[in-house]
Amino acid sequence: MSENGKTFEESHFHLYDFPTVSIPRLSHLNPDTDRLISEMKPVVLTDTELVASAQKWNLDYLEKNIGPGSYTVYLSNNKKFKYFDESKIREHNLNFTPPTERIEMKFWDFAERLRNWKDGEKRMYLQQPLNDTVGKNMVDDFLSFNWNWIARQKKENNWGPLTSNLLLISTPGNITPVHYDEQENFFAQIHGYKRFILFSPDCYDKLYPHPVWHPHDRQSQVDFDVPQYDKFPKFHDISGQEAVLGPGDVLYLPMYWWHHVETVQHGDYAVSLNFWYKSGPSGKITYPLQGFQKMAVMRNIEKMLVETLKDVNEVGPLLQALVEGRYT
Amino acid sequence: MSENGKTFEESHFHLYDFPTVSIPRLSHLNPDTDRLISEMKPVVLTDTELVASAQKWNLDYLEKNIGPGSYTVYLSNNKKFKYFDESKIREHNLNFTPPTERIEMKFWDFAERLRNWKDGEKRMYLQQPLNDTVGKNMVDDFLSFNWNWIARQKKENNWGPLTSNLLLISTPGNITPVHYDEQENFFAQIHGYKRFILFSPDCYDKLYPHPVWHPHDRQSQVDFDVPQYDKFPKFHDISGQEAVLGPGDVLYLPMYWWHHVETVQHGDYAVSLNFWYKSGPSGKITYPLQGFQKMAVMRNIEKMLVETLKDVNEVGPLLQALVEGRYT
Ligand SMILES: [Zn+2]
Ligand SMILES: [Zn+2]
Repeated sequence: MSENGKTFEESHFHLYDFPTVSIPRLSHLNPDTDRLISEMKPVVLTDTELVASAQKWNLDYLEKNIGPGSYTVYLSNNKKFKYFDESKIREHNLNFTPPTERIEMKFWDFAERLRNWKDGEKRMYLQQPLNDTVGKNMVDDFLSFNWNWIARQKKENNWGPLTSNLLLISTPGNITPVHYDEQENFFAQIHGYKRFILFSPDCYDKLYPHPVWHPHDRQSQVDFDVPQYDKFPKFHDISGQEAVLGPGDVLYLPMYWWHHVETVQHGDYAVSLNFWYKSGPSGKITYPLQGFQKMAVMRNIEKMLVETLKDVNEVGPLLQALVEGRYT
Repeated sequence: MSENGKTFEESHFHLYDFPTVSIPRLSHLNPDTDRLISEMKPVVLTDTELVASAQKWNLDYLEKNIGPGSYTVYLSNNKKFKYFDESKIREHNLNFTPPTERIEMKFWDFAERLRNWKDGEKRMYLQQPLNDTVGKNMVDDFLSFNWNWIARQKKENNWGPLTSNLLLISTPGNITPVHYDEQENFFAQIHGYKRFILFSPDCYDKLYPHPVWHPHDRQSQVDFDVPQYDKFPKFHDISGQEAVLGPGDVLYLPMYWWHHVETVQHGDYAVSLNFWYKSGPSGKITYPLQGFQKMAVMRNIEKMLVETLKDVNEVGPLLQALVEGRYT
């Protein structure tokens, strides 16, 4: 292992067109850690022991102990797993071809398929919130998490309740294209390696998210492999922050921070666990608004227009009329 | 007089680049009149006798009878009197040079100046709501208006209260550039001739109003004399409705309808009186929304953004980020 716990080679990750700096890797005891979290800035914590009891959650252990529940698995013919919200297809009667296939599996079927998986086959991404179907051993592991530390973070930062623990298991090389989530997240790496590229909410005008009513809401339209600079000119100016998480690392991924995630290409599968918390009350607002607040305002305008116009196809023309020749 | 009561020549009005059709001229007894008003479509009524008692309100009569009140008069070095809202200059701390000068005058001073006015001098436009300073004869004239007819219109169309009667007196050739008002209006012509060019609220995307926080809120940015088609490309596609009002004519000018108004160039001064009514409750909304409703939605978005961002200079960049590469 290298000093920061990496066992991968840098070449196992893609090269992109934009510059990045490293996300700080700190002890949870370092005073900077609490400061960064309170400022909603990302940081990798190397020694939280948040999920130390889950470090044994490899495929074999999970297969034996996770229980008989049903697991959501996405299948992709390429490396990308771009999230889509199926409810929006129905709600707005959209013509939309999902980029991945969503299936439900028993865990043992998934484990078998993953064990036999070879590069070139359909990639798989299990994404399932833990629920009460998990077996007793894993419940014990769960209860042994460092709730003490994470509850203190929740309290000190005035977050709302923990909403879910998403379990993620990916084939090597899987890519989750750049998007943002609307909750605070501690992302705990359990098995294998994942590379995160993050962008501040201050980049709100550089990543061109799909409309809020679109199934790809919260996902950028920019394809990092072939950025359409003519359509997305401000992507030229973007710069990111980067980290590779290995087993035991926990990333604080602040609400509304854009993130692109890759599982190491030629290595092992990856197992990770999300801790998603609702944001707290906004408290005293200062001006000018911060990037994440502007993102929320923009979301609200789009939602209000869908609600008012009752037709997603009318949102664009109205916004264009509002802007063109007036704010251009 | 010609059959529609015109005593002017068409050449006394400007020629513009867009096509127009005539606004219907109807008797108030014609069943189409009530239908057009209920549909919020413009119509010129030739025989309402709405302000018959005011047909004698020429400069001499007004000077003798209007009383000692103070009158707001705008002065312009050219033909245009583009309205501006001074309160917005202060509210948003804007750098704004008013295109006209606003002064307060006694009516007799205004009358004296208008009587001696010659083409080439500063133009004048008196714009003052009637108030309780008017003399007894004019109060009697006012009480003799056809309140019976107009109150029936108010009632049948569910309008709110009459908010003001704006008295307008203009030097020949004055132009009020294209804008819209947020109230229903019966525009009564008393003396002289005025040409109206109207555009439906469905043209909401073709006339590029200034931002709502701008002193020229509700005014189009398009200069009809030299349209900047590169900046305002959809103005290419506009078409209007036109009418010339003479003494006794009353125009129903529906809320949110764009209007450009000219006083005949080489004729007499013009005297007119507005009847502005608040719109009523919106009632049952049907979809898709109509143009005037979209205009209201757009105003609300801009107002909400000013309120939320607390800086008018941030409205444009946020709206651009919302639209560019996303709804373009
Ligand atoms: Zn995410
Ligand atoms: Zn007006």
